[in-house]
Amino acid sequence: MKKIINDPKNYVQDEVEGIIAAYGDRVKLVNDDFRMLVSNYPRKPGKVGIVTGGGSGHLPLFCGYVGKGMLDGCAIGNVFASPASSKMADLIRACDSGSGVLCLFGNYGGDLMNFKMACEDADFDDIKTEILLGTDDIASAPKDKASQRRGVAGIVYAYKIAGAAADQMKNLEEVCRVTKKALDNIRTIGFALSPCIVPEVGKPTFEIKDDEIEVGMGIHGEKGIEVKKMMTADEIAQLSIDKILDDMPLQQDDEISIMINGLGATPLEEQMIVFGAVKKILDRKGIRVYMPHIGEYATSMEMAGLSITAFKLDEELKELLRYPASTPFYTNENK
Amino acid sequence: MKKIINDPKNYVQDEVEGIIAAYGDRVKLVNDDFRMLVSNYPRKPGKVGIVTGGGSGHLPLFCGYVGKGMLDGCAIGNVFASPASSKMADLIRACDSGSGVLCLFGNYGGDLMNFKMACEDADFDDIKTEILLGTDDIASAPKDKASQRRGVAGIVYAYKIAGAAADQMKNLEEVCRVTKKALDNIRTIGFALSPCIVPEVGKPTFEIKDDEIEVGMGIHGEKGIEVKKMMTADEIAQLSIDKILDDMPLQQDDEISIMINGLGATPLEEQMIVFGAVKKILDRKGIRVYMPHIGEYATSMEMAGLSITAFKLDEELKELLRYPASTPFYTNENK
Repeated sequence: MKKIINDPKNYVQDEVEGIIAAYGDRVKLVNDDFRMLVSNYPRKPGKVGIVTGGGSGHLPLFCGYVGKGMLDGCAIGNVFASPASSKMADLIRACDSGSGVLCLFGNYGGDLMNFKMACEDADFDDIKTEILLGTDDIASAPKDKASQRRGVAGIVYAYKIAGAAADQMKNLEEVCRVTKKALDNIRTIGFALSPCIVPEVGKPTFEIKDDEIEVGMGIHGEKGIEVKKMMTADEIAQLSIDKILDDMPLQQDDEISIMINGLGATPLEEQMIVFGAVKKILDRKGIRVYMPHIGEYATSMEMAGLSITAFKLDEELKELLRYPASTPFYTNENK
Repeated sequence: MKKIINDPKNYVQDEVEGIIAAYGDRVKLVNDDFRMLVSNYPRKPGKVGIVTGGGSGHLPLFCGYVGKGMLDGCAIGNVFASPASSKMADLIRACDSGSGVLCLFGNYGGDLMNFKMACEDADFDDIKTEILLGTDDIASAPKDKASQRRGVAGIVYAYKIAGAAADQMKNLEEVCRVTKKALDNIRTIGFALSPCIVPEVGKPTFEIKDDEIEVGMGIHGEKGIEVKKMMTADEIAQLSIDKILDDMPLQQDDEISIMINGLGATPLEEQMIVFGAVKKILDRKGIRVYMPHIGEYATSMEMAGLSITAFKLDEELKELLRYPASTPFYTNENK
């Protein structure tokens, strides 16, 4: 295991300490166990709170999106493991301003179970909560079982929409309505070229041959649809758009945002090459691209590969996507 | 070679096409050979032009910094190879608004030779030019031969300072004065854990054992100071600060910006851990950190490793570092 770390046992704490050392003017810990990060930007009185949570090892996901116009707080788990429900409950309390809290996170069993318990806990304090799940990974279940799908990089778009709606002082019902609309219009497919290593485990999450690519792999190394011989950027783009459009039909003049998300070890050059290939395919279909997101948004530490997300937009979603957001790891100021 | 690309021969063109497909509203090509990128933001009349150039394979370096408040243009070479002097000359012409052009680039033989020829060429058109070189890599030559040092990630700070000064309508002499001051106060040291592969070559640039780290390696895989047994994040931070302070003494209450630059395959978690370690060392010395830059600024495609840069600031440099800049790959809006 070749990682630039200290004791693997302290991986998460060391990382969160680094985040606070760098951005302590804008984000802060709820307590000193390094498991809850909340925004330190001025909070509008009565704003709906937006919180998330999930395992570590995916930076900027999840806690990198805590800031202004996105998340108010994030519960932080061990690498690839759900945070504890007690932390989530404390987080909900810390992020409630009297108007309720939306818990928005990826569809994973542990996270869902723990957030449900946390919401019940918050209910004792008369804090109104709602849960919405990211289920954008089309490779993880067929369309007729779409609610069972995993959440991957596309949840970043949902954070953006929910955060903007809350910052515009919409009430909890309205924030949930528009976030649900966003979630219903996001589709992702991922490709992995190499595994990653969980620091405390010390060995690769899976094996893959030098001339193979795993199509549809999840961000924790969950099995994909198939293992194929290594593909070109053009082939990856074509397969992705075919699968996404099969799942979410798009017509000429529809507008979408495209996210090319590097999984950790994939050079930006390759991400740009894939975006170029995707754009050509969409141009031929007359589908318009609005505000692309290219870079690392949801990673698996040193995993090589990338995911492609399409987010179908209408005027309301475009306005919320464009609405200013600024966190230490995200800004749409230059997008 | 496991890369998400098409024909290796088209690597640079495919990448630049992707950049234009994504950000064509903000950057544009000078002609259709994909070798010169210039800003498409409104240009202030009479502004000093800031241009750079260098080989591909380092995104966001070099062309990712073309935009508002940084570079006006960039000449693009093949992977790890200098652009042609004729392209540089065309670029200088395209970026001159009558007040002259600063050519600001890393200290590499090919780039320097070609930019010198390009400046001579521009002189025929009565375009005033100046050349300033990034020489921040302290591992590449001893202090008494500092002018022979290579330029690495620290040049991004110099782009920022030069771009801000030009945007404030300072004249060429003033832009050069303050950029020179910045360059004199930047020091970098790099660490490599794995090689990268030049697409058209198809094999790794160097070899390194599973339990070894190359201290002081350049961004093209140039030999470092020594190969050591794998180090912890704390050890890397300590060695870096020791070497940087040995070269550029700092005192209590001095202010510096720190850049932790991932070389391509190093997870953001590890970058944050190293930043946390660096910050602790500096805190103990009473050296203050202003506006840290953590992420990928100058990469070697899929090379694993990182570099640490210190940029010593005064009030003038702080104001220019803080001055707004926005390019498709950089903004300081959330730093």
